This record gives sequence, C-alpha cells and structure tokens, in this order.
Amino acid sequence: MKIAFLGLGTMGLPMASNLLKAGYTVYAWNRSPAPVAMLAERGAIAAANAREAATDADILVSILADDDAVRATILDGQVLSALKAGALHINMATISVELASNLAQEHQNKGVHYVAAPVLGRVNVAEAGQLNILAAGDAQALATAQPLFDVLGQKTWKCGARPEQANAVKLAVNFMIASAIGTMGEAVALVQGHDVAKTEFLDLITSTVFAAPVYQGYGGAIAQDRYEPAGFKLSLGLKDVRLTLAAGEGANVPLPIASALRDTHIESLAHGEGHLDWAALSRTAARRAGQL
Amino acid sequence: MKIAFLGLGTMGLPMASNLLKAGYTVYAWNRSPAPVAMLAERGAIAAANAREAATDADILVSILADDDAVRATILDGQVLSALKAGALHINMATISVELASNLAQEHQNKGVHYVAAPVLGRVNVAEAGQLNILAAGDAQALATAQPLFDVLGQKTWKCGARPEQANAVKLAVNFMIASAIGTMGEAVALVQGHDVAKTEFLDLITSTVFAAPVYQGYGGAIAQDRYEPAGFKLSLGLKDVRLTLAAGEGANVPLPIASALRDTHIESLAHGEGHLDWAALSRTAARRAGQL
Amino acid sequence: MKIAFLGLGTMGLPMASNLLKAGYTVYAWNRSPAPVAMLAERGAIAAANAREAATDADILVSILADDDAVRATILDGQVLSALKAGALHINMATISVELASNLAQEHQNKGVHYVAAPVLGRVNVAEAGQLNILAAGDAQALATAQPLFDVLGQKTWKCGARPEQANAVKLAVNFMIASAIGTMGEAVALVQGHDVAKTEFLDLITSTVFAAPVYQGYGGAIAQDRYEPAGFKLSLGLKDVRLTLAAGEGANVPLPIASALRDTHIESLAHGEGHLDWAALSRTAARRAGQL
Amino acid sequence: MKIAFLGLGTMGLPMASNLLKAGYTVYAWNRSPAPVAMLAERGAIAAANAREAATDADILVSILADDDAVRATILDGQVLSALKAGALHINMATISVELASNLAQEHQNKGVHYVAAPVLGRVNVAEAGQLNILAAGDAQALATAQPLFDVLGQKTWKCGARPEQANAVKLAVNFMIASAIGTMGEAVALVQGHDVAKTEFLDLITSTVFAAPVYQGYGGAIAQDRYEPAGFKLSLGLKDVRLTLAAGEGANVPLPIASALRDTHIESLAHGEGHLDWAALSRTAARRAGQL
Repeated sequence: MKIAFLGLGTMGLPMASNLLKAGYTVYAWNRSPAPVAMLAERGAIAAANAREAATDADILVSILADDDAVRATILDGQVLSALKAGALHINMATISVELASNLAQEHQNKGVHYVAAPVLGRVNVAEAGQLNILAAGDAQALATAQPLFDVLGQKTWKCGARPEQANAVKLAVNFMIASAIGTMGEAVALVQGHDVAKTEFLDLITSTVFAAPVYQGYGGAIAQDRYEPAGFKLSLGLKDVRLTLAAGEGANVPLPIASALRDTHIESLAHGEGHLDWAALSRTAARRAGQL
Repeated sequence: MKIAFLGLGTMGLPMASNLLKAGYTVYAWNRSPAPVAMLAERGAIAAANAREAATDADILVSILADDDAVRATILDGQVLSALKAGALHINMATISVELASNLAQEHQNKGVHYVAAPVLGRVNVAEAGQLNILAAGDAQALATAQPLFDVLGQKTWKCGARPEQANAVKLAVNFMIASAIGTMGEAVALVQGHDVAKTEFLDLITSTVFAAPVYQGYGGAIAQDRYEPAGFKLSLGLKDVRLTLAAGEGANVPLPIASALRDTHIESLAHGEGHLDWAALSRTAARRAGQL
Repeated sequence: MKIAFLGLGTMGLPMASNLLKAGYTVYAWNRSPAPVAMLAERGAIAAANAREAATDADILVSILADDDAVRATILDGQVLSALKAGALHINMATISVELASNLAQEHQNKGVHYVAAPVLGRVNVAEAGQLNILAAGDAQALATAQPLFDVLGQKTWKCGARPEQANAVKLAVNFMIASAIGTMGEAVALVQGHDVAKTEFLDLITSTVFAAPVYQGYGGAIAQDRYEPAGFKLSLGLKDVRLTLAAGEGANVPLPIASALRDTHIESLAHGEGHLDWAALSRTAARRAGQL
Repeated sequence: MKIAFLGLGTMGLPMASNLLKAGYTVYAWNRSPAPVAMLAERGAIAAANAREAATDADILVSILADDDAVRATILDGQVLSALKAGALHINMATISVELASNLAQEHQNKGVHYVAAPVLGRVNVAEAGQLNILAAGDAQALATAQPLFDVLGQKTWKCGARPEQANAVKLAVNFMIASAIGTMGEAVALVQGHDVAKTEFLDLITSTVFAAPVYQGYGGAIAQDRYEPAGFKLSLGLKDVRLTLAAGEGANVPLPIASALRDTHIESLAHGEGHLDWAALSRTAARRAGQL
C-alpha cells in the first residue's frame, strides 16, 4: 500500500514519522523542502511535487495549513485529479466546514473516498502517537482509515458520515479553547482591577474548579507573561474563530461568545500581538481596562 | 469561645455542623426555623433571633443568601451593633464587592474585625469539610479565623488585606463557570446545527481538553437534558453575573463575555427557565438557533 | 397655588424660570446656593432646605441629578413626608425604573400624587420652553400637571398610568442615543481603517440617511475631535446605559447592543475619558483598532 | 460612446433607463431576460450575453447582486477580458472590500480603468435620478464617470483613489442602518416589557431625536408589523453585516456592535424570517424577551 503524505509542518512531520515507524511506505511532499529531507532520512520517499506524491497512492494523508493551502494544493494543484479511482484521501487539517463540504462533493465526483480527520493535541502528543482524532466520512472509508488512525492517535472519535461534521466538531473545540483563554483574560483583568495578583488567582482556579489541561497550559503562560515562542499563534486563533462563526452562520447558529472573541482577537492584532501565543489574548482584556 | 452562626441554608447547615463536631460552641440562627432545630439536635444553641445569637459572640460566621439578606440582617437587623468590640465577623456569602467594601468600613467604625471568606464547593464538599476558602482581611483577623477555616475547608486562599478582594475573586470564579456553561451551550448548538449528537461531543470534550469538574458536571447535565432538581439555579447565576459586571464597572474593567452571558441568562428567564439548574443556560443557545 | 422646585441644575434653572415667567409662585431649593440666588432675582422664594420648600406646596417639581440624589432628598431628606395629602409630585429626573416604581408606591402610601416626567432636549430647548415631556401617572395627576407641562414643553407624550413607564421610555431614548454614538464610532473606525477621512464620511451620513439632530450634533463633534466642554458627560452616559440594562433585566428583556455599549463606556472611563462629552465614546472604537 | 449595462434588478433597471433618457446608447444584459426586454422597449440594445454587451464598450456599468455574481460574470464570465484597453468599468454593486481590491488589481493588469460607485437610495430615488453616489478610483477615471453620475444621482461623494474605499464607506453606511434597526428593536422590546405601546414610542422618537428617514421608514414598518413585501430583505442585511465585519477584519478594526447585529440577523434566519423586510430584525429582540 502506497501512502502519500502532504504537509510536514509541526504536526505533520511527527505524524508521518509515526507512519514510517509503523512500516508504511510514505511518499512525502511539503511546500518547503527541509522537512521532506528530514523525513527522507527516516525512510520516506521524497516527491518532487504534491501531484507526483499523490499519483498511484492508495491513501493520501494531508495536513496543510489552511483553506487556501488546501485549495491551492488539492484542487488547483491537481492532486485530486491525480488520485486514482477508489483511493482514499484523509484530510487532517483544520479547515472550514464549507470547504470540507465542497471537497467531499469534489472527491465523490472523481470517485475518490474522502475522510475529514482533524486532530486534538500538540506536537508532543503527535510524536507519541497519542492524538485524539475526530473523524467523519462514510463507514467504509473510515474503516480503511482506521489502521492509520491507530498509529497516529490514542482514540478515534466518530463524528458522522459527512466529512464536514468532523471539521465542525474541531472548530467547536477550538472555539471553546478561545473562550477559555478569553474568559481567563477577563477574569484576570477583574481581579487585577481589585489589586489581586493574577498569579494567585490563576493558581487557585487551575488547582480547583478549572483543573484541566487547557486552563493549566494557557493559564500558566498568562501567569508568567510568557507569550513567546508561540505554541499556537494568536493570529491562527483568529482564523479558527472566524471559521467557527462561518460554520455557525452556515447552520443558522448565532454564537455571541464567539463574536465577542472575534473582536478581542482583532484588537490583539491591531496592537501588534498576532504573532504571540494564543494566551496573549488575555492582554487585550487588561489593555481595555487601562492596566497595560 | 462563643461562635454565632447565621444562615443555615444548603451550605451553612453542614458547615455549622462541622464546627460543632470540631468542638465549638455554636449559637445558631436562620430565617426559617427548621434548620435551627436540626442543628440544635446536633448540639447547637438555638437563638431567638440573629441579634441575640450575635450578642457576646467572639466570632460571628454568616453565610446569608445575598446582598439584601446581608443588609437586612447584619445592618438593618442590628447584628453588627450587637457585636462586642474586638469580635470577628467572617462573612462567607457571595455578595457584591460594593457591599463588602461598605461592610468593611462599617465594621471598622464599630471596632469589629471583618473577614470576607466566600467558598468554592457544593454541599457534599461542605459536608466533608473540604471547601476551598477564599479569604481576605487584615492579617490578624485572618489568623483568628484560620482555625475555623481549617475545620471547614481543605485549603485557604489568601486574596488580600481588603475583604472585598475575596468577593472579587469569588465572582471571577463564578463568572468563569458561567462562561464555561454558556460556551458549551454555543458549542453544542454549533455541532447540533451540523447534525452531530451533543452527547458524543460532550463526551469528547470532557474526556480530553476540558477534563475538569465544571465541564464534566454541567456537561453531563446538558448531555442528558437533566435540569431539575437544580444544584444551583440559573437565576442565581444571573445574580452572580450581575455582581461580576458591577465589580468590573467599579474598577473600570470592561467584560464583554460577561455581558454576553448576562443577556443569555435574562433570555433564559424570559422563557421561564430561571428555576432550572445553571446547565439549562445551554438551552438558550439552542433556542436562538431554532433547535428547540 | 404654591409650587416647590427642587434641583436648579443646567436644566432645572431655565425650567423654573419659565414657571416664574408664566406667573407661578415658586419656592426654590438647590443643593448648592448660587442658582437659588439667581432664581430669587427672577422672583422665586428661596427655601432654606428642600423640606421647607415642599411644606404646603400644591405641586412639587423636582429634577435632581440621579437616583442617589432623589433618595437623599425626597425619601431620606423627608421631602415626601413634608408634602400634604393630595399634593402632586412631578419628578422630571432621569432615574431608574426601580426607584420610580418604589417612589410611586411610597407616594401612594402617603396620599400624595406622583407623576414621572423626564424630558428630551438640551438647555437651549429648556430655555425656550420647547422640551418634549415624557409623562406617566394616573389620569387625574397628569391633568393637574398639564398646565405646567404646557409652560415647559412643546408637547407632552403620555407613556402610561404607572410613573415608571415614563422612565423606561426616557432610558430607551437615551440608549438609542448611546447606540447612535457608539455605532458612529465603529463606522468611523472602519472607514478610517481604509484611509477614508472621518470628516467626509460624517458629512455624507449626516447629509443623507442619518440627517437627524442626534447624528448631526454628535457627528459634528466627532468630525472635529471636539469633546470639551462636555454637553453631556460620557460618565453620565454610562449611568444611563446601566439604568437601561437594569430596566431590561427588570422586565426580562435582553439588550445585547446596550451590553456592548456598556463595555465601551467603561473602557472610555478606564482611559480617563469619562469627563469628556458623550461623543468621545467614538474614541474607544478607534483605540481598539490601534488608530489613536 | 457605447455603454454596456449589466444587472437590471430593482435598482439597475431604473438607472439604465435614466441613461437612455439622457441620450446614451446602452447595450444591456441581465441574467433573467424579462428586464432586458423591458429596457429594449425603452431604446436599449439587448445583448445575448454579458460578454457580448461588454465588447467594444467605452464604459461598462455593472450593478450585480453580490460577490458571487460579480465573480461569475466579470471574471469567470470573461467580461473583463472582453473589455478593450482604456475602457472604464463602473461597478455600482455593494460588494466586499476584498473583492473590490482584487478587481482593481485585475482591471489594472488588463489596462482597464475601474471605479467603484455603490449608491445610497431605494428604487424611487433611483427612478428620480437622485441617488447619492459613493465613488472611488483614480482621478481620471472618476472624471470620465462623472457625466453618468450626474444623470443617475443628485450628488457624488468622493471616497478616495482606491476603488475599495467606496465599498468600505457603503458597508459602513449599511452597518449603521442595521444598527439603527437593531437598536430600535431592543428599545421597543424594552418599553414593551414595561407595557408601553410600541406605536407610541416609535412615534415619539421619529418625531423628535431620531427624525431621520431611516428611522421613520423602518420604524413605521415596525410600528405596523409590516414586513412584507420586503423593500430590502433581512437576509441581504446579513450579507452586508458579514461584509462589514470582513472589511473591519481586513483593517484590524474590531466592531462589537456589528458582531451583535450579526448574531441577531442569524437568529432571525433561524426562525424563518430571512425573506422578510430588514425591519423584521426587531422581532428577534422581542422574541428573546419572550414577547412573541
């Protein structure tokens, strides 16, 4: 079985490595060449371009940066047209529900199976093969994908038969993370406004009611004003909130908290903080209160 | 040492019981008589009224329902004027920052020490003496209160020298809980809008990124549409959000997520759901999306 | 007929003057003495205090600063208890619906008629006796008040039989003004973000779709960055938005735009702009966009 | 001089008619044929398709429905490639800032002048040739367009040298209209919550502080619950709010009131009201308050 893997970013590289370790033959491509070379050292076959990697692939795994990259590579870059009938494309990127739905249709038109499978987990989780995989697509395609999911993740969460459903779930999760950060930001500004140290407040909440990874991770960064290097850039957070709002609009779901978060992200960007870690979103709440 | 205990509601009753068990002499009063009788069976001395309970007390512990009850009992009901000079009042209720600040001043005027000590934890935690206690006041008063805190809680979190600081912290925590529920409500509406079952989505998030008590508790209720009996009424949630917004305004801290939550709570009340558990806040997100 | 007039601020002074000009006998009081002296020169009888002014009055007209001033003067200052049975109190201040409702009850308990009659119009309109008067109360009391309204205003708008209804209407109008300013602020920030001069944009809208006094007045100030002296202070705008939100909560009416405006006002205060004219609210939209 | 006119909808038809009346030769095309036939009776030359109309045109005027229609017709439909070098395209549609910017670039690449000139005014204003025209583009192109603007409108407002600036202004105006309607909706819900008839409240505000066309028009519809036939559909209002938010995001301008309005529009759609007149947005405020 020939596997093509497109997109060797922070997440894609360790994921592709795990497929190699599990014994799969992997044809790899990435927009910039360095990670391809790294993966080739681990046994991958470097492809000259995405289309070449996809040709004759039984399974195409892609985890590209965003909607534009997916459109440019899969549709305009003619990867889809290079896939053979009956092949399976597993798209693990966080993309819009609308594009996911379009892709599902385009793949069906070409006789190629399509599964959306965005993941939860940072790079160390990817390295350990312990991702949570949110997967949607028709049952047969999901069954074909499962052995790969078992290599990449600790658990596969089935989200439905329509691929875009997995993207909706992924966006809902990322929206909840944005809200957790934004809410911490406001809560911190509130207690600071009453002269309570944010370190003590964050210690309290992450030790008690909010003793969850997301609060501990982002809360720790806020406590220490540690926003660089960015684990996940604030500007990418805005992208996901925007996709969340669009996914809501597509299903007539108003999302006032997501709307408030959108404005907060934009305000962060307007103050030159888009390159900082997502935790820096908390700075905007403090700035609004005149605390910065 | 004579301890007066005012307010034997859901939380006050087990807390007063624990003080009795620890060997303290407790003079008890409650607006309705039944819990006083229950506590008397456990060794408390029933007081005819709040003022009588407070007379000669070394330490007054109160955990009354809200600002109005505190004003009516402590100020208008002349409990404060009945306290002897040098006594200590530990106010464990969730009240406004403004009232807490006023009370601090009034107590100081009378030569009575004042500590604010709202708590985190539901009734079972109170019964087990495992509350988290958020305490603020001057160092000497806090030291006097500590033995009682050790009986009632697992840990005391010092929030500052001004009593209202503890109330600001408590409100910030409750705001974060409101936001967690409201955010889950929007996220659930979003995935439901894409035909994903909320049970599966809530299972996913509470098993992974949001594996924290508050999400598991309220998320479980949302998953099962289980809103009665109310552990904490939605209408009380609105009260706390209102106090949060006022605490923000008092320190010039804008709180847009809290504002969005305020509107959601009011909308829930407008649809007759104020008596339901706080988790029912999620219904308003679904209602807005035409899903109910 | 003896008329008592309490509150000779910017609006009260010209209104009381007009009553004098119309031939009424006016007993006047104000917290600070200077305006009383001015009015005495125009024929008013200076009262030593509010209670003295009210004693034996047939009609008491009051236009005090806010809820606190009304409570302090009318209730705590015992003006109400000094009024004779059958007298009429016309309260023309912009106060909360809740206080208006309480006052209506208190007056009824004392056998004193009570009409709420807040006004629309700035000082020059008051001087010209051309105010729009929003009046509510029982029909007989409104009929008694009408001759005074005819002196003070160009038109009396009946808002209902319960006095607080007029206050609800007044707050709704002020909320709409706040929204007009806040909306102009966002629109200006948007076009500025695309390098369009705000002067040209404001000229356009106030000459066409929004050719209304409120847009022309506040829009003109925004166009010229003219925020001092304040015609109506931004901090008073926050007070009215807060009362609007409370009036909404009292009737289970969510008000998301008012909530957004509340946060914008607070942010303005946090940046030291509460003393500026209400038009300065627009600065916060520009500040958020990094344009200041 | 040969003029091509694409898009004979509600606005386009009377505009093209006015150009005919002014003596211009007009080659007309519309997606559906009926309006073309109507215009041909008035002297226009019917084109078989958009590309044919544009061929050899000195000036192309287009007023198509939305971004998709513009892309489909001008770019994908190869109208742009059919235009001769040195021709002028006047795009009078309300489209996104992003598309306007892309079009400016595409036209420049082809050596075709491009002016954006969206308009203010409903159909009767278009018929009377009394539109307000918001125009942006380079000075020479604007000068070429001016004689046509003089036929179509009462005044041309210059918005800048970059075409997309006119679109930003147009969106800012439409956002302000959305806010006026949404704000009236909340204000009406507020007074209704206190048992004040909305007819009287709307009469008050549109006679006094808000005596402007937009309030009188939409306020009158709200007063009478008259939402059909739609003068401007609520669903189109959502489109414009969405484009406004995108224009804000493109320039890092947070727009919290626009965000609140977005959610209100979506909620209206979720309750099946997207086909109603924009004034029906007020229903969502009432629905949230449990008043419907």
